[in-house]
Amino acid sequence: MQQDFKTFASNCRQRVDTALDLHFPAGDDPTQLRAAMRYSLFNGGKRVRPTLAYAAALAIKPELDLSLIDPIACALECLHSYSLVHDDLPAMDDDDLRRGKPTCHIAFNEASAILAGDGLQTLAFDLLTQTRLPASTQIQLVRELAQGSGAHGMVLGQAIDLAAVDHQLNLAQLEQMHNHKTGALIRAAVAMGALAAEATHTQLAALDTYASAIGLAFQVQDDILDVTGDTATIGKQQGADIAKNKPTYVSLLGLESAKHKAAELHQQAISALNEFGDSASYLRDLARYIVERSN
Amino acid sequence: MQQDFKTFASNCRQRVDTALDLHFPAGDDPTQLRAAMRYSLFNGGKRVRPTLAYAAALAIKPELDLSLIDPIACALECLHSYSLVHDDLPAMDDDDLRRGKPTCHIAFNEASAILAGDGLQTLAFDLLTQTRLPASTQIQLVRELAQGSGAHGMVLGQAIDLAAVDHQLNLAQLEQMHNHKTGALIRAAVAMGALAAEATHTQLAALDTYASAIGLAFQVQDDILDVTGDTATIGKQQGADIAKNKPTYVSLLGLESAKHKAAELHQQAISALNEFGDSASYLRDLARYIVERSN
Repeated sequence: MQQDFKTFASNCRQRVDTALDLHFPAGDDPTQLRAAMRYSLFNGGKRVRPTLAYAAALAIKPELDLSLIDPIACALECLHSYSLVHDDLPAMDDDDLRRGKPTCHIAFNEASAILAGDGLQTLAFDLLTQTRLPASTQIQLVRELAQGSGAHGMVLGQAIDLAAVDHQLNLAQLEQMHNHKTGALIRAAVAMGALAAEATHTQLAALDTYASAIGLAFQVQDDILDVTGDTATIGKQQGADIAKNKPTYVSLLGLESAKHKAAELHQQAISALNEFGDSASYLRDLARYIVERSN
Repeated sequence: MQQDFKTFASNCRQRVDTALDLHFPAGDDPTQLRAAMRYSLFNGGKRVRPTLAYAAALAIKPELDLSLIDPIACALECLHSYSLVHDDLPAMDDDDLRRGKPTCHIAFNEASAILAGDGLQTLAFDLLTQTRLPASTQIQLVRELAQGSGAHGMVLGQAIDLAAVDHQLNLAQLEQMHNHKTGALIRAAVAMGALAAEATHTQLAALDTYASAIGLAFQVQDDILDVTGDTATIGKQQGADIAKNKPTYVSLLGLESAKHKAAELHQQAISALNEFGDSASYLRDLARYIVERSN
C-alpha cells in the first residue's frame, strides 16, 4: 500500500540525504573543498529531481527496492547543486542568497565555489557507476545525465539565459531557454528513474511528455513566486528576476495568464500519465505540488 | 611495423582533432557557448593525455584498431581543456595567456568561460558512452575518469594548489599537490587506454607505476621550463609561477636537483615497463619526450 505523498516526499528527501552523506562524508579536508561541496549539497534543497526519479521508478515497478535508485538520486542532486553554485557566481547571476543562506562563493570564496561546482559535477557521474544495475543500464544513465545537463541541455539553457539579460525575448524564446535550463535535467531525472526500473520505450515516451510539461510548469511557477512570494518564504530576494530585467512568464504574459499557463501544463502532465494506473500517483502528486508550491 | 614516435604522436594529434571536430562540430551557436568550447579545445594543445591513452592501448594490444580509442582520447582532452579554462579564471590563477593565445575568459567573457568549462566536463562523460566497447568497460572508463578528475583527484589538486599560494610547502606537500592536480588525470589516461585493450590487473599495475612517475616528471619539467624557457616557446609568461610566489620544484630543490629529479622519475617510468616488450616503445618515447620537451 502506498504512503501519502507528504510521507513519500519526506522519505525521499531522507533517503537522498542519508545516501549523500554516506557517499560523500565529511572528513579530512585541509582545503575546504569538501566542506564547500557539502555546504552546497546540504542546504535545505527540496530534492525535487531525486523525488521525481524515485516516483518514476515506482510508476514502472511499484514493488521496486528504492535503494537501487539511491545513487541516481544522489547524482541528480550533485548535478543540480553544481549548477546552482556556478549560476550564483559573480560573473553569472551574482546572487548572495540561496534558500535563505549565503551562496557558496559568499560562505567560502569564489575559487572554492568554482571548484566545488566542478567537483560536484564529477561526483554525479562517479555515483552513476556505483549502482547495482546492469552495466548497460548504467551507461544509459550516464548518457541521459550528460545529455540533459551538457551543451545541448542545461548548460546551453544557462548560456541562453545569460545572453537574454537586457534583451527582449518572445514567449517561444523564453520557453526554449527554460526547456534547456531546467527542463532538460527534470526530463533526465524522470527518464533515469524509469530506465533503472526497465521501462519500455512507450512508457519512456509517455513519461517524457509528463516531464517536459512539469519542467516548464516548475519555471512558470518560479516566475509567479518571484512576483507573489515573499523573500522569507521563497528564500531569495523577491522580485530579483524582474529587478535584473530578466524576461519572465509574468512579464511577458501578465500574472493571470501565467497562472493559466501553469494550470494548462499541469493538465498536460496528468494526461500523459493516462496509461498508468495507481503506480503513477506520486508523479501526479508531484505535478500538483509543482504548480501549487509557495517556495 | 611501428611508426617512429614523431609520426605516431602527430597521427595521435590528428586522430583526436578529427574526432573532436566530428563529435562536437561548429554549428548554430547563438550564445557563443559552442564557440567558447571549441576555442578551448582547439588551441594548439599537445594532446599528451590522448597520446598516452593510444600508446597504453597499443602496449597491451599492438594490433588494436585505434578508432576504438578515439572517444576516450576526446574525453580526456575535453576534461583537460575544462580544467585549463577554469584554472585560468580571474578567481583562480588569473591567467590572460595560454599557449600564446588569450585565455577563454579573455577571448569571450568570464561567464562564457565558466559555462564552456562546465560543458566540456559534461561532454567528456558523454563521449565515454559513445565507444564501441562493452558496457562493462565503458562503465570502468567513466569511473576512472571521474575518480581521476574529481574531488579525490584533479579538483582536489587544484584546491591544494590555490590554498598553497603565499604558503611554504615542503617537498612532500608539493608532490601531493601535483600527484592530484596533474598526476591523477595522467594515470587515468593510461589506465583508460589499457582498460579499453583489456589489460590484466598485473599490466594495469605496472602501467600505473609508469603513469605516476611520468605525471610527476611532467610537472618537474614544467617548473624547470618556468625558469629556463622563454615566453614565446612555453606559450605563457616565463617566470609566472615564481612571480606568483607559488612553490615549485626549482624553488624548493634548486635547478640542478630538479633536473636530477626529472631524470630519476624518467628512470622509474622506464623500469615499470620492464615486463613489456616492443609494444611499449611509444610509452618509453613519451616518457623521454616529457622530460626533454621545451614547451
